[in-house]
Amino acid sequence: MRKFNFSAGPCTLPLAVLEEAQAEFVDYHGAGMSLVEMSHRSSTYDAVHMEAMAKAKSVFGAPDDFSVVFLGGGATLQFAMIPMNLLSDGQRGAYVVTGEWASKALSDGSYHGDLYAAWDGGSEGYRRVPTAEEIVIEPNTRYLHVTSNETIGGIRFNEFPDVGVRLVGDMSSDYMTRAIPWDLFDLVYGGAQKNLGPAGVDITFIRNSVLEETNRELGAYLRYDIHASKNSMYNTPPVYAIYMVGKVLRWMESQGGLAVMESQASRKSGLVYDAIDASDGFYRSQVDRESRSHMNVVFHLPSEELDAGFLAEATRRNMSGLKGYRTVGGVRASLYNALPVEAVDALVELMADFRSANA
Amino acid sequence: MRKFNFSAGPCTLPLAVLEEAQAEFVDYHGAGMSLVEMSHRSSTYDAVHMEAMAKAKSVFGAPDDFSVVFLGGGATLQFAMIPMNLLSDGQRGAYVVTGEWASKALSDGSYHGDLYAAWDGGSEGYRRVPTAEEIVIEPNTRYLHVTSNETIGGIRFNEFPDVGVRLVGDMSSDYMTRAIPWDLFDLVYGGAQKNLGPAGVDITFIRNSVLEETNRELGAYLRYDIHASKNSMYNTPPVYAIYMVGKVLRWMESQGGLAVMESQASRKSGLVYDAIDASDGFYRSQVDRESRSHMNVVFHLPSEELDAGFLAEATRRNMSGLKGYRTVGGVRASLYNALPVEAVDALVELMADFRSANA
Repeated sequence: MRKFNFSAGPCTLPLAVLEEAQAEFVDYHGAGMSLVEMSHRSSTYDAVHMEAMAKAKSVFGAPDDFSVVFLGGGATLQFAMIPMNLLSDGQRGAYVVTGEWASKALSDGSYHGDLYAAWDGGSEGYRRVPTAEEIVIEPNTRYLHVTSNETIGGIRFNEFPDVGVRLVGDMSSDYMTRAIPWDLFDLVYGGAQKNLGPAGVDITFIRNSVLEETNRELGAYLRYDIHASKNSMYNTPPVYAIYMVGKVLRWMESQGGLAVMESQASRKSGLVYDAIDASDGFYRSQVDRESRSHMNVVFHLPSEELDAGFLAEATRRNMSGLKGYRTVGGVRASLYNALPVEAVDALVELMADFRSANA
Repeated sequence: MRKFNFSAGPCTLPLAVLEEAQAEFVDYHGAGMSLVEMSHRSSTYDAVHMEAMAKAKSVFGAPDDFSVVFLGGGATLQFAMIPMNLLSDGQRGAYVVTGEWASKALSDGSYHGDLYAAWDGGSEGYRRVPTAEEIVIEPNTRYLHVTSNETIGGIRFNEFPDVGVRLVGDMSSDYMTRAIPWDLFDLVYGGAQKNLGPAGVDITFIRNSVLEETNRELGAYLRYDIHASKNSMYNTPPVYAIYMVGKVLRWMESQGGLAVMESQASRKSGLVYDAIDASDGFYRSQVDRESRSHMNVVFHLPSEELDAGFLAEATRRNMSGLKGYRTVGGVRASLYNALPVEAVDALVELMADFRSANA
């Protein structure tokens, strides 16, 4: 029986996509070989690759003046590549520190450019994102980096801040789950392994006018302009991950596209937050209401024993991946695009039953 | 019908591996989900990951004082990471330039360290590798970079040069097809997509004493020491590619391991070179005999028309991927580990038939 998979990533993918990929794996559309055995310069792979790139732009609604690149190394490599590529002498990068991922983006990037924290929620326990007014932009700032959704803390920007410098957004954990105001952004990036496919590929959108000014004094793999000019085929791309991303994007289209994903995410997370809010404090969320993530709902029960009991009962009810992050504990329900609403219904039912039995 | 796939990479993989991966793709060993949907911190994926790492070391015969890391970004990212990590102030990297790949390693790396060409075969048309005596090592050289096999030119080091500084080896196109003298090396790297699996993962072996001295002033993804200390799980690894590499390594073991791969490569390439040598100049190789690649046999027919006719006949006989590289033309037969000897027999038969008909 297929599990209700609440894993924070890698995570659940559409069953129809998995079954289609399985069926065509050994002999790809009668080619006499698997897609992963073909030259990445073959016309067959080229069609798969270019379709995935085009769909990434169309599904996400990226304007024509943005390019998309598919890279290996995940969002973690992007932490270094962003300041490497975007900062010239004398320019600085500003970072909104909203949790573990934003902290990593800042500390990693600091080896490759002059960066600073424009706001840091650490003293408040990372329970919210700042307002635009709270973000302090210093002179010579080239960009403001924001982490759209913090997977571990379970907070998100409901509105992206307009502070007079363009944004760079890490959207790893809510990529293509929401429309974004492209005018505010110069660059958007993230790993595919939450909402878009298996692990192994990062997707970066970058404004074309920015590509004209990026640093050229870097090894080729570290240059956005080269990847963009070669349609992410400068070197051998991560073929299988890109192929799967293309299929997931096609599935998203078939479901109605980004707007449907966004409303489903709001609905699914709303069901869990409602269960928390209606529990008379049995289930507790540390996150400020207006910063609540639509992807990762983090909550605690009244004791660690009850946390453990809840997780054990979840396992008995065919749910997996609900254990909270190591440093946070409690429960984390990740509700990515491919998680069916039936899984959320089952979780909410568990929350009601477990509270009745233990409150 | 399954093609005889002579592609230079991505390329043919063992059919048994593909079929096994297909069978267990949607529901991995009864887990109720695909392996690519599982957390990379799950015990199930951890077992797959650690087995692939252990088998990479055991199949290749890496000594205990080497670590192995699995990374995204391919060998191209390694071109930058190697000088970034290995060179301290005042140290230089030396490069043996044997063709297109060595040239890229040198030019890319030059943005990240003080590098120089210790030998360059360009004026000779890249038809051989140098002897150790021809390689000029300058003062303060930290390492000598060699490209074990040049995929495009079809040449290889039959013996690795002992020049008094340790080697860094790009083995992308003959990885785990031959035993290497580990004492000579500090680092060996390469993409998986020729002999080891699908595209999307680079495998780097690095001497542990070197890891103690690598540069720490880099973003985490760019640091070998971090990846090694975290068993290549610092961030989300390219799960599917690593899983497939593990299966291919297991298949290699079942075939008899590295020594069998090495003798088969010698035998398979020998069959094609014999056909060239016996053709009275109808088939011409520009490569010096003692530098002949065991992986990529590059040859030309007397005219471009005959090249094209040969390739057309190959297609009719169920062979694919034989077209020479864009800048080289002619024919390139890539004979990686998973290419069955029956494919080579078919190629040799074609060579005899086509010559009889056209000489």
